[in-house]
Amino acid sequence: MLKAGRSQEEIRRHNLGALLRQVHLGGPVSRTVLADRMGLNRSTIMALTAELTSAGLVREERPTDTGRAGRPSLVVRPESDRVYVLAFDVRVDRLVAARVGLGGTVLERMEAVRPRAGADLDDVVGVLAGFARRLHREASPEAICVGVGAAYCGMIRPGDGMVRFGPNMGWVDQAFGAELGHRLGLGLPVAVGNEAHLGALAEHERGAGVGFDNLVYLHGDVGVGGGIIVGGKLLDGDGGYGCELGHMMVNPHDGRPCGCGSRGCLEAEVGEQALIDAAGRSADLFGREGVRAVVEAADRGDLRARDALRRIGDWLGIGVANLINLFNPGMVIFGGMLREVYPGAAAQVRDRVEANVLMISRKALLRTSALGDDATLIGAAELAFARVLASPLEVLAQGDAVPGRGPVPARATP
Amino acid sequence: MLKAGRSQEEIRRHNLGALLRQVHLGGPVSRTVLADRMGLNRSTIMALTAELTSAGLVREERPTDTGRAGRPSLVVRPESDRVYVLAFDVRVDRLVAARVGLGGTVLERMEAVRPRAGADLDDVVGVLAGFARRLHREASPEAICVGVGAAYCGMIRPGDGMVRFGPNMGWVDQAFGAELGHRLGLGLPVAVGNEAHLGALAEHERGAGVGFDNLVYLHGDVGVGGGIIVGGKLLDGDGGYGCELGHMMVNPHDGRPCGCGSRGCLEAEVGEQALIDAAGRSADLFGREGVRAVVEAADRGDLRARDALRRIGDWLGIGVANLINLFNPGMVIFGGMLREVYPGAAAQVRDRVEANVLMISRKALLRTSALGDDATLIGAAELAFARVLASPLEVLAQGDAVPGRGPVPARATP
Repeated sequence: MLKAGRSQEEIRRHNLGALLRQVHLGGPVSRTVLADRMGLNRSTIMALTAELTSAGLVREERPTDTGRAGRPSLVVRPESDRVYVLAFDVRVDRLVAARVGLGGTVLERMEAVRPRAGADLDDVVGVLAGFARRLHREASPEAICVGVGAAYCGMIRPGDGMVRFGPNMGWVDQAFGAELGHRLGLGLPVAVGNEAHLGALAEHERGAGVGFDNLVYLHGDVGVGGGIIVGGKLLDGDGGYGCELGHMMVNPHDGRPCGCGSRGCLEAEVGEQALIDAAGRSADLFGREGVRAVVEAADRGDLRARDALRRIGDWLGIGVANLINLFNPGMVIFGGMLREVYPGAAAQVRDRVEANVLMISRKALLRTSALGDDATLIGAAELAFARVLASPLEVLAQGDAVPGRGPVPARATP
Repeated sequence: MLKAGRSQEEIRRHNLGALLRQVHLGGPVSRTVLADRMGLNRSTIMALTAELTSAGLVREERPTDTGRAGRPSLVVRPESDRVYVLAFDVRVDRLVAARVGLGGTVLERMEAVRPRAGADLDDVVGVLAGFARRLHREASPEAICVGVGAAYCGMIRPGDGMVRFGPNMGWVDQAFGAELGHRLGLGLPVAVGNEAHLGALAEHERGAGVGFDNLVYLHGDVGVGGGIIVGGKLLDGDGGYGCELGHMMVNPHDGRPCGCGSRGCLEAEVGEQALIDAAGRSADLFGREGVRAVVEAADRGDLRARDALRRIGDWLGIGVANLINLFNPGMVIFGGMLREVYPGAAAQVRDRVEANVLMISRKALLRTSALGDDATLIGAAELAFARVLASPLEVLAQGDAVPGRGPVPARATP
């Protein structure tokens, strides 16, 4: 709790990371602006930039056209093609992988439908490792991989990426992070996070929630997960298992059965199947495609589909109102399938917020995800970048980064 | 967001505050233990202690009896009699004030029943200022007042202590903090907080929740307020109005009307009147006394009173389960009237937690408040101490502290 003063070396490392983070999240920026944003003088910025440049993390360029007379200030850019991470996303219905460059550019992306059966740890990790080989192969020879991150649709133990509970795939205590790290053979740790947590992080850093230090992100698919940013940081709780807003009881009277064994949980009332059932389409529709079909039917004027969306909106509104009362957030973001559902359910959600939220907290904006279905993937990439942003030079110097091309595993762990 | 390195002066101030906080919260402690806890070397600890001693904030003493041979290490104690704050607590049913010494010792305490009528800002501030005069008068001539804090049963705007909404007293946008500061005439700012927020802070720092960085505190009286500690800090949200767990909708089907205009809110289902009504005693019982009578009747075996407690426990359990799923806390603490209600409702609460909380988060301990009805008052004192703990010497040097005895207002503001 009590930190003594930091050493000069710590301060330097902190500032290197802070500068790199500015460039990574904010994009190309002049030294002048950096000095201003970071509250440091220009000579310090110059020294820091020089170190990051010689490490190959950023480069300085004349801006193409400033539209102003005089000598333009140099612009600092992330080396997006040279420095990248691997990001994976294990979703309910598919497996996704991407090579994401510093600065957040998705350089390459691939995905496969997840087979309904045979999705044990070994299968999943095998597919992801195959993706990784292809992604590395496409990287330029000088490119280096500085981290690996993965989103998973379940409860993740922080630290080692153990999947404690992955209801959609029937996983309990599966060493996903360790096993993926082993199979990749890069000698890099794999940082794993819950998909909704990472979706929240991505929306906060690069999506609809930029600039909002208090926000609630609801991520819908089969169930409903959540990621909640409190004071700029993800709420994790004692074990890292917080934000489980999908199991908030909203309908104790005659609630639908929930996968958790209870009834009337938010996810039971507003998840994919609830919408499809409410629309009377359970015989012919299923999953995300089914949700889309109901939403499209409502758009075409189908009354039963419209009613189904309103019904979902009513329960969703109770949950959202509870969350606004608890968190007093600046924004609530609807992601995953809720992004598609929300427009047709918004009136009911707003009514509930109006009725149940104390007036003083009603200012929260209600928005759909800006990053769409890749919010979770982008969150996984940000998780992977965390190490290099924390200590830029150390990660490179310690060889904790591996060439993109060449035989993989390049430095296999035993 | 991006802090550059701290100067030596900032580090020194930080360490002075950190050492004072150790002594304030942990009580008398040897320099050796301080060095160990703070990760600083003994000569630094000695220098810091010397500065705090000469400022009159701590003193060093030989321990009375260590039970060990050899020269005992000096013990650093807070100057509890010399350095104090004024703490106020505006509760639904009473006004409380105390002089609290550094180290958290309640040196003197007084209270008055709040008149049901005529409780406008002027009345309340008048009573509190009268308390303050008496409290100052009893202080020793060398004693100094270093801060003023107040808990209020309503929504408070951080910064200026404006009561945005105080439903129990019908207050809307009343400048409570400013007006109390003016009437006290001490030249000290008055820090005001919501009662449940401050109860949570007090339990976290000095009560049942010491050592728990993630905890939920529920404070019941007419309504139910909350204070939620996330990662060691009070959750406040964008405007400071978070933690409103009393308006979590738990009974959307046939809920009791709530003071907020909605129905089925947690506080409508588990507040004082809900219990009294459920016990069939609304004709003869009222308020906190009424709650106590129902609890005592249940203790004597009255079946209707027992059923009433169980009914409350059922709704309370839904709310608690939702909170555990959201916050994954180490502990949930029941304060205010819920402290008296909880024992008779615990079985139902535990059943709900068992049924509705994901197994992985079920470890949260359920406890009653250790500080009892004064949790909020003690929280107000801690709020008042915050300034001197942040910059111990500055607060004293700038004359932002006033002698205890002598004519009050000693340095009246215009």
